[in-house]
Amino acid sequence: MEVYLNDRFLQAEEAMLPVQDLSIQRGYGVFDFFRLQEGCLLYVEDHLARFEKSASLLRLPVPYSSVRIKEIIRELTKRNGLQDAGIRLVLTGGYSADAWQIGNPSFLVMQGDLHIDPKPVAPKAVRIITHDFVRDIPESKTINYTMGVWLQQKMKEQEADDVLYHHHGQVTELPRCNFYIVNQDGLVVTPHQKILHGITRKRLLEIDGVYEGPVTVSDIRTAREAFLTSSTKRIQSIVEIDGKPVGDGNPGPVACALLEELLLKERNYIKAHS
Amino acid sequence: MEVYLNDRFLQAEEAMLPVQDLSIQRGYGVFDFFRLQEGCLLYVEDHLARFEKSASLLRLPVPYSSVRIKEIIRELTKRNGLQDAGIRLVLTGGYSADAWQIGNPSFLVMQGDLHIDPKPVAPKAVRIITHDFVRDIPESKTINYTMGVWLQQKMKEQEADDVLYHHHGQVTELPRCNFYIVNQDGLVVTPHQKILHGITRKRLLEIDGVYEGPVTVSDIRTAREAFLTSSTKRIQSIVEIDGKPVGDGNPGPVACALLEELLLKERNYIKAHS
Repeated sequence: MEVYLNDRFLQAEEAMLPVQDLSIQRGYGVFDFFRLQEGCLLYVEDHLARFEKSASLLRLPVPYSSVRIKEIIRELTKRNGLQDAGIRLVLTGGYSADAWQIGNPSFLVMQGDLHIDPKPVAPKAVRIITHDFVRDIPESKTINYTMGVWLQQKMKEQEADDVLYHHHGQVTELPRCNFYIVNQDGLVVTPHQKILHGITRKRLLEIDGVYEGPVTVSDIRTAREAFLTSSTKRIQSIVEIDGKPVGDGNPGPVACALLEELLLKERNYIKAHS
Repeated sequence: MEVYLNDRFLQAEEAMLPVQDLSIQRGYGVFDFFRLQEGCLLYVEDHLARFEKSASLLRLPVPYSSVRIKEIIRELTKRNGLQDAGIRLVLTGGYSADAWQIGNPSFLVMQGDLHIDPKPVAPKAVRIITHDFVRDIPESKTINYTMGVWLQQKMKEQEADDVLYHHHGQVTELPRCNFYIVNQDGLVVTPHQKILHGITRKRLLEIDGVYEGPVTVSDIRTAREAFLTSSTKRIQSIVEIDGKPVGDGNPGPVACALLEELLLKERNYIKAHS
């Protein structure tokens, strides 16, 4: 498998960064991740716009135009010959002589095997726990996942699939997914502040009946359904939170219906872009 | 300059980590930093104990005993021929095929030029700003300095030398330093929770009249003095916070006296260990 690192294509196992890079010294950098599905870069414009926003929030100049980045990705996917894959863009703080000031950012594109069901019939059911936490600069997709990586052990111990962050009674997001409830009025609500604006979330907000707004910890207790979204997971039904069932403890009809709509959007996007 | 990376000594410019390392992918890792002064590794036992604690909190196994790490550091300083320097130990999450799970940690020792005044006559006076923030896992010296690096621009704009974190009215620490006030009773108090336990802070707590306990944002307003400590800065007097003078706006007598005691401790340590 090849990757693209700082102006050249090379074998993944040869792609290295100097230990003085600000990602290694200070965990400083941003990234984005999206899917290549049937040779189509799914929602690539949205992901590139978010990547640029993430970088800008961290004061990291992106060294290429989005047109050039798309060319690089297309050339990379051609070289690797995959039709279905995960694409990861990374922009680090770069070489920093004093391990503190931002340097000349390093730009990396990686491609990895990713097989997800092209036609899932229903959302997967998952159980989650909660944790009081807010990410540093939530609207930027920074590389800082210290808490998310660290919580893996806690999830394992509690036999949970994922973890939901909350702070001051407000629910925000999962480490790599957005969160939604179906409230007692049947409306779908996803938290609006201190979150990463997911691209699957953006697709869902295009659908009637899906809104962004505050979601509190107590809203969860009375919710009919809860679910999460991400580019790789699409929609997963959350059937249990901290050991208590959500609704009747089974994937609900709203999550099922939204998954269908999401899959239709994917098909239409791929049709329009191939 | 040579560094030590994963079982071997090599030139600093040849020291690289694969882009799949969890430090680059997820900002996951810990480090420690201390001084080589006149050929003596200042408080190396304290720093190694903290490094092991940081690693343990992040569930990263340290691949060597502290005895072996000291040997590695001594061999490295011999190869580089420096008598005064900064030593940095880094332990990253290692190669992670899925960019999520902790791998086999990478262990790095770097040495860099560091010249600090051996006999400063008074603490430097600095001006700081404040920012509402708590580090992810405060008692671990993680590599995650996203917020600290990011705030550099704000400090520059406000002509500040550093930034003090607080949350819920409680003051904690600066990105790379501990914080202290001299209260109206003349006692020195340094925050006790959600902080990194600095080694210079440990030295100060050995001195009569220095205590750890809660420090609130409003305590700062009535403080006679405020100051910070770190391994490289020793003691610096904070003469202004968010544009308002602390005390009479000049370095105070307590910070001066503590700097003298700290320097004496350094001399005694070096004498005892050379």
